[in-house]
Amino acid sequence: MQSKRNPITPTIPFDEDGAHHGFLRLPYSRDDSAWGSVMIPISVIRNGDRPTALFTGGNHGDEYEGPVALQNLAATLDPASITGRVIIVPAFNTPAFRAGTRTSPIDGGNLNRSFPGRPDGTVTEKIAHYFHSTLVPMADVVLDFHSGGKTLDFIPFAAAHILEDKAQEAACMAAMRAFNAPYSMRLLEIDSAGMYDTDVESQGKVFVTTELGGGGTATARLIRIARKGARNLLIHAGILKGTPEMAPSIEMDMPDSDCFVFAEHDGLIEPTADLGDYVRQGEEVARVWPTDRTGVPPVSYAAKRDGILAARHFQGLVKAGDCMAVVAEVLY
Amino acid sequence: MQSKRNPITPTIPFDEDGAHHGFLRLPYSRDDSAWGSVMIPISVIRNGDRPTALFTGGNHGDEYEGPVALQNLAATLDPASITGRVIIVPAFNTPAFRAGTRTSPIDGGNLNRSFPGRPDGTVTEKIAHYFHSTLVPMADVVLDFHSGGKTLDFIPFAAAHILEDKAQEAACMAAMRAFNAPYSMRLLEIDSAGMYDTDVESQGKVFVTTELGGGGTATARLIRIARKGARNLLIHAGILKGTPEMAPSIEMDMPDSDCFVFAEHDGLIEPTADLGDYVRQGEEVARVWPTDRTGVPPVSYAAKRDGILAARHFQGLVKAGDCMAVVAEVLY
Amino acid sequence: MQSKRNPITPTIPFDEDGAHHGFLRLPYSRDDSAWGSVMIPISVIRNGDRPTALFTGGNHGDEYEGPVALQNLAATLDPASITGRVIIVPAFNTPAFRAGTRTSPIDGGNLNRSFPGRPDGTVTEKIAHYFHSTLVPMADVVLDFHSGGKTLDFIPFAAAHILEDKAQEAACMAAMRAFNAPYSMRLLEIDSAGMYDTDVESQGKVFVTTELGGGGTATARLIRIARKGARNLLIHAGILKGTPEMAPSIEMDMPDSDCFVFAEHDGLIEPTADLGDYVRQGEEVARVWPTDRTGVPPVSYAAKRDGILAARHFQGLVKAGDCMAVVAEVLY
Amino acid sequence: MQSKRNPITPTIPFDEDGAHHGFLRLPYSRDDSAWGSVMIPISVIRNGDRPTALFTGGNHGDEYEGPVALQNLAATLDPASITGRVIIVPAFNTPAFRAGTRTSPIDGGNLNRSFPGRPDGTVTEKIAHYFHSTLVPMADVVLDFHSGGKTLDFIPFAAAHILEDKAQEAACMAAMRAFNAPYSMRLLEIDSAGMYDTDVESQGKVFVTTELGGGGTATARLIRIARKGARNLLIHAGILKGTPEMAPSIEMDMPDSDCFVFAEHDGLIEPTADLGDYVRQGEEVARVWPTDRTGVPPVSYAAKRDGILAARHFQGLVKAGDCMAVVAEVLY
Amino acid sequence: MQSKRNPITPTIPFDEDGAHHGFLRLPYSRDDSAWGSVMIPISVIRNGDRPTALFTGGNHGDEYEGPVALQNLAATLDPASITGRVIIVPAFNTPAFRAGTRTSPIDGGNLNRSFPGRPDGTVTEKIAHYFHSTLVPMADVVLDFHSGGKTLDFIPFAAAHILEDKAQEAACMAAMRAFNAPYSMRLLEIDSAGMYDTDVESQGKVFVTTELGGGGTATARLIRIARKGARNLLIHAGILKGTPEMAPSIEMDMPDSDCFVFAEHDGLIEPTADLGDYVRQGEEVARVWPTDRTGVPPVSYAAKRDGILAARHFQGLVKAGDCMAVVAEVLY
Amino acid sequence: MQSKRNPITPTIPFDEDGAHHGFLRLPYSRDDSAWGSVMIPISVIRNGDRPTALFTGGNHGDEYEGPVALQNLAATLDPASITGRVIIVPAFNTPAFRAGTRTSPIDGGNLNRSFPGRPDGTVTEKIAHYFHSTLVPMADVVLDFHSGGKTLDFIPFAAAHILEDKAQEAACMAAMRAFNAPYSMRLLEIDSAGMYDTDVESQGKVFVTTELGGGGTATARLIRIARKGARNLLIHAGILKGTPEMAPSIEMDMPDSDCFVFAEHDGLIEPTADLGDYVRQGEEVARVWPTDRTGVPPVSYAAKRDGILAARHFQGLVKAGDCMAVVAEVLY
Repeated sequence: MQSKRNPITPTIPFDEDGAHHGFLRLPYSRDDSAWGSVMIPISVIRNGDRPTALFTGGNHGDEYEGPVALQNLAATLDPASITGRVIIVPAFNTPAFRAGTRTSPIDGGNLNRSFPGRPDGTVTEKIAHYFHSTLVPMADVVLDFHSGGKTLDFIPFAAAHILEDKAQEAACMAAMRAFNAPYSMRLLEIDSAGMYDTDVESQGKVFVTTELGGGGTATARLIRIARKGARNLLIHAGILKGTPEMAPSIEMDMPDSDCFVFAEHDGLIEPTADLGDYVRQGEEVARVWPTDRTGVPPVSYAAKRDGILAARHFQGLVKAGDCMAVVAEVLY
Repeated sequence: MQSKRNPITPTIPFDEDGAHHGFLRLPYSRDDSAWGSVMIPISVIRNGDRPTALFTGGNHGDEYEGPVALQNLAATLDPASITGRVIIVPAFNTPAFRAGTRTSPIDGGNLNRSFPGRPDGTVTEKIAHYFHSTLVPMADVVLDFHSGGKTLDFIPFAAAHILEDKAQEAACMAAMRAFNAPYSMRLLEIDSAGMYDTDVESQGKVFVTTELGGGGTATARLIRIARKGARNLLIHAGILKGTPEMAPSIEMDMPDSDCFVFAEHDGLIEPTADLGDYVRQGEEVARVWPTDRTGVPPVSYAAKRDGILAARHFQGLVKAGDCMAVVAEVLY
Repeated sequence: MQSKRNPITPTIPFDEDGAHHGFLRLPYSRDDSAWGSVMIPISVIRNGDRPTALFTGGNHGDEYEGPVALQNLAATLDPASITGRVIIVPAFNTPAFRAGTRTSPIDGGNLNRSFPGRPDGTVTEKIAHYFHSTLVPMADVVLDFHSGGKTLDFIPFAAAHILEDKAQEAACMAAMRAFNAPYSMRLLEIDSAGMYDTDVESQGKVFVTTELGGGGTATARLIRIARKGARNLLIHAGILKGTPEMAPSIEMDMPDSDCFVFAEHDGLIEPTADLGDYVRQGEEVARVWPTDRTGVPPVSYAAKRDGILAARHFQGLVKAGDCMAVVAEVLY
Repeated sequence: MQSKRNPITPTIPFDEDGAHHGFLRLPYSRDDSAWGSVMIPISVIRNGDRPTALFTGGNHGDEYEGPVALQNLAATLDPASITGRVIIVPAFNTPAFRAGTRTSPIDGGNLNRSFPGRPDGTVTEKIAHYFHSTLVPMADVVLDFHSGGKTLDFIPFAAAHILEDKAQEAACMAAMRAFNAPYSMRLLEIDSAGMYDTDVESQGKVFVTTELGGGGTATARLIRIARKGARNLLIHAGILKGTPEMAPSIEMDMPDSDCFVFAEHDGLIEPTADLGDYVRQGEEVARVWPTDRTGVPPVSYAAKRDGILAARHFQGLVKAGDCMAVVAEVLY
Repeated sequence: MQSKRNPITPTIPFDEDGAHHGFLRLPYSRDDSAWGSVMIPISVIRNGDRPTALFTGGNHGDEYEGPVALQNLAATLDPASITGRVIIVPAFNTPAFRAGTRTSPIDGGNLNRSFPGRPDGTVTEKIAHYFHSTLVPMADVVLDFHSGGKTLDFIPFAAAHILEDKAQEAACMAAMRAFNAPYSMRLLEIDSAGMYDTDVESQGKVFVTTELGGGGTATARLIRIARKGARNLLIHAGILKGTPEMAPSIEMDMPDSDCFVFAEHDGLIEPTADLGDYVRQGEEVARVWPTDRTGVPPVSYAAKRDGILAARHFQGLVKAGDCMAVVAEVLY
Repeated sequence: MQSKRNPITPTIPFDEDGAHHGFLRLPYSRDDSAWGSVMIPISVIRNGDRPTALFTGGNHGDEYEGPVALQNLAATLDPASITGRVIIVPAFNTPAFRAGTRTSPIDGGNLNRSFPGRPDGTVTEKIAHYFHSTLVPMADVVLDFHSGGKTLDFIPFAAAHILEDKAQEAACMAAMRAFNAPYSMRLLEIDSAGMYDTDVESQGKVFVTTELGGGGTATARLIRIARKGARNLLIHAGILKGTPEMAPSIEMDMPDSDCFVFAEHDGLIEPTADLGDYVRQGEEVARVWPTDRTGVPPVSYAAKRDGILAARHFQGLVKAGDCMAVVAEVLY
């Protein structure tokens, strides 16, 4: 098969100064629109050529801190205040974002497992491919906002990956620290197949990601963290003038599979520790009660290592196989 | 039409001492089970005749603090430790609870708008009617756990209604204070049609309800509040021996419709105040951004009175007509 | 409210001799047909005025022995061979029958719990009302075919009810015996609210019903039983000339609620007795295994009385509340 | 039961001069919004008290000529140009309109079969009741736009009903003629139960309705007819200054059930006459081909009377029971 | 991977004279039929070997002019009247056709984007592959009927593609003119990946396609055009004896992307020009009104070039990304 | 692409003696559980290394004899009673089994058409790949239980395939005979693409499969056949001590496509022969009646060869393309 052209076309220019707001138009023929399209909102704020920042939210459609922070940034960032270019896509997986779901309602695609994508694939794969082949190559620094979505909740952290290229890793860690979330996480990605993170890093870019809460909501406090982080990162990248706003941040990591506690029973979950609590190995973190009868004792689940409860199952009901808790190690 | 018999039958006795765990069996013929039933788990813990407490959770099926607290109570309450009877139904609207939805997946019924129910109505109406005609009449004190569910979030409070019978009101307010949530709310119910609250109160019972958080999750902290409140109330009612565990509680009310802020636009919500924050009249509490384009300013929504942000829209997306914020008045 | 007119109109006459095949047309406006209708197939075979037999199948839409037998009868019954009139409706609840479901896909209506119906109600209630007010009054003898449908399986029996009017009861029992299924069942209906049976009997008619198998299928053997029974009943009623085809039939009844075994657990069902087996009180009739894990012992369910296994849960999975087994008493 | 209060509240005044645009807010609690509402857009254009016109579109949610004409009118009608008040609701059954369906996706309600409604009924019944009890009583002249929706197509006509009160009938006929659609239809409503038309007429108001095309689309030509008709009617009512724009209109009626041709077969429809064609009794108007095989002759359907083809089944597939054609009589 | 066998088998012969009506049977195992099949109706009318015409309709399942014309042809074409063979498949994508949807309800497949298909792919891909590998190779001339379906509407035209092989292009243009629709369109296909058109043309065949209206309906007038065109083409191909029926036809083309007007807003569409209207560059062709409020001005969309309005969005509501209008150039 | 790691991890060891019950955990991120998993129950009963038997049920999720027999075996097999290892997976396609459907509700995957699977494919393909690459290589003898599921019914038989390697074929036939079902079937698999059977056989293993009934139910009698067969096979393989329980078994085969009778009409099926009946070529086996009208004769379907009715369509309604009957040849 020969190389195919990606069918996405932008309605705004990437190479003209000023603030441009438009769409990436992706033709999408379907039962309710024979000649329809998916329209992905995009803003390009530009004042000269370089450097370029590419900021995305809504990679998973049920995570809201990033989209809110980026809508703010797109509506208020003055081209005169920057040097270079900021490309902002608040709803990366637009169909998922508009449906309020993690994955695309069109094709079930998990965008963050669809890279490098395909120009003739599903809608989600076409989006992935367009970023892989067109937008990421334009960028110097890339920020992708995540949080726990409707089913997980996290302590708010920025993260950078442990990479083979130690110079790139150092640049990413520095960018993560510039973001300055309350927690900062070093991640060793084991199963990185299909991730945007890996795709961006393999193109040699500085990459920062986040987990800023979850539950399918956003709070004023978490949005402040997201907005501050985006601004700090633009200053760090030399694009925005100004002084970064810095506060203490706890550095952590998740070294191995003992960090994770998985459910082996369906039921009603009773968390016995909350996010940010310090727990010890063997200490109960949750119980599971049956949903179909009373008078039966619950199943107890314990931490497999010492650390801080960094993530938890969010919903009130739990299914066997769900991750119930993540215990992370405090570095300093 | 003559009076009809409610088809629900309990599989355990109400008049035998000890701890009994079983079901209310409601015959329910359907495509996937011609001779099927809805099975509502119930526990009766009994040591003598009176007084009787009736405790329910899961009236709305996506609220979890009550069900967890009541599963704990049902599994651990020793008949020898009480005088009288405790009837525990952790999943009041069982079909909704098992589906994780506010209303019943069987008939769309909102149980708390279905009282006094009908013996020959929908599944939800039959449940309402059984409580109305059989269980509530047995009770002296009734506690119904609520929270915000998947779409709202509340500061944790117990509540009692302003009633015409001031002696009954005083008994309810005393029970609310005995529950001892962090906040205590006096409610003037305006549109009480179909509510369990009203049905119980009109039978002359002492009634306490709660709103203990929301978002379709439960935390260790909120479950402790729920468990403590249930225990305190049993002691207050003279059923359980022991000393209540008391802490300060802020008393509040919601005097009029100016407490409520409704959305007039669909979009991405940016809360600008968090639960428990004190806001002044005219102060912005939320913004709504479009989901389909960037570069457009948000719509701003302000508080219509001074007070504490007592409830908020939970989901990241908002629809025109949704309640975005409730500002409550602090009494003392 | 004043009495309203039922909107159903027949496309064939009831008062002309010969074989007429057409529809009961029920106007039904909906999203996919603003001026649409439900078309209920009906045949009227007539040679003079009286007596009139009214034969129905598909009261529940997933029961097939009756519809097959009645399609045969409608296509082959020669008006010259009869005295009187035979009204045949093979798909009583047509929308359910065409969907292959017990209840109507339009409104969820269980036709056999919808009598006497309403002329301005749901589609199912309109069908019930038309039979109640127009067709049943025309009839002398009424036969309604049932079986277990997709979720139950029965030994094949014809049935008649124990009635207050002992003369009517005797006529019904005689008709049941004339039908001559392998088993004959005397039924004391306890919860008869909304049943076609009761509606017909309360109009003083001779009424026979059946349960002829189940599982959502029909076999050649069971169809032969249905066809023979319909023919025998027409001869018994004096409508069809000829000699009835008779074989031995075992008479039974289901005297009380101890006949029924209900599940209290969801799971994978292991029947340990088959239809027609004689079981003793306390003998295991089924076990329930979990579907989510291995290595756990099953829950055992036993008969609560001696008798023949007359009905059983059909599907491989069972839900708490499902009827698992019916043990009937042999009379002679 | 005592009389209950309708829960709908307007966000704009009915008694202040000027142009006001807002909502009828109908509280609607549901799984995805515990404290949500249905928001029905409404405009009130006012200059003094009387007379009052009430114009509605979107009674069925898949009919578009009326909503477009009324959005135009609401956005452009200058209060200074009128005497009296114009109340405009372009999307009468808002949930249906936003879903593009004839009936409400919330409760399946056909608004035009839900009058006089109930204050404590379904969402559709609450809307009906609010118009019945609040808006219609304010009005002198009422116009309700209809067309064939997604499943029917009509020649464009305005219509008035034959009424017992001949003075009211004459006023309605005059208003219909003032609307001046290409066709004008006299209707004898036989089954008027639940219609808005009947509810308005029984309150003694002047009422005009239309059928202006169909198929779930609108054309520039049909929108011009709708806009002209609305303007003409305001002038006729003495509200708007100006000269009506008049053209010839053919008067017709549909005297009896012979006007209607119903399908008795499912299949692929081949219309053999088009809207506006003159057909004679016995002349073929459509054929039905099977969808599952070739080489089989079609079923032919003929007109049962002479006249103009005034309406037809729109979709390419037809179901038994669908109305395939309406043949109307030309009066002059 | 080795070459795999396509599982489709015909139930009729391709090499016997006479009229044969049967099926292409495609085994399709699924939950509701473990050993089920998709049955694609096909007719073969044959009198000798060559030439062979292959006529298809229902490539998209919601387009009806072709299927009706081809059902007529299959039922009436006399083998004695022809020389050669006519293969007729009125419902090319049978699952889509029977569901009334553009794409297949089984796998979401758009048949006209699935060529050359796969013998071991989805149901849609298997159909494509069978035509690609078995039927198209048998053919000399191929006609595939299209129209706008449920979401677009077209002026009625036949079309042929601009091809690299100018001799083949000339043969196709001649066949298009022989079809003699009211309009004739020269098409330069830019994104031809997966199209049946391209697959047929790349096999060197004479290929004609059409767009004959749309909206998910068919009219008597458009069916006459389709039937005439099919007959004319058979005569042109030397298969059918007789004289073609010819009328004037306007030749057009769509030279570039300026022909297309896409929506950038969701809303209620107001077309301001109708099909066949001549519009000038900058002239408004449609407006979009909001669906959620009144009193807001519409967004206006203009033609980007002069020409005839050749296609338009059909549905009353429009989504951002939908094609609203196509303006084509008149050649002569 | 390089070789990828299968993400499934077992929670129990394969190489420790004793009875171990746990899960194969397959990470599965989805909208309702961002970090969720599919949990496939598995038991390993071990006493030394070899030989190893691998027994599976629920390959299709609506077949129940195997899962029940294997739950029994897993719960009761004593490690001390065996030599070697028995790996038991009662619900091979767990998502399908728990949904009660033939194919997976997650991805529509038919597990028995998904081999050899893919480590980075769908959930069903990952399961297939794990068995292909991890479990089958561990095994010496493999048994996979099937029956007709919800849509077919079979006479109960064990089966082995005709293979190129005659020594392997002989070993498989011997194992089939050791299973000792009432019927034994020699199968020549023509379309074996994707089957587990073929995958196992191509790895040189002894393989037995079954069809033990169907209809989506299990009976006490058929479960006894399944349990006896599994035990007999363990004894035959030298794993379990004891004497096999043997009874007569009829040997059969299905030599060609004349064994199969397919429907060409939708409708209500009337079987005229039952499973196990001997039928002759040309003898009617079923009729199809219309579901939408009465008074029309049925379509008759006849056997195309002499033999025993070995399988039949189960549901009461039939669709064109369904296999209605299979007539097998008796060998001895």
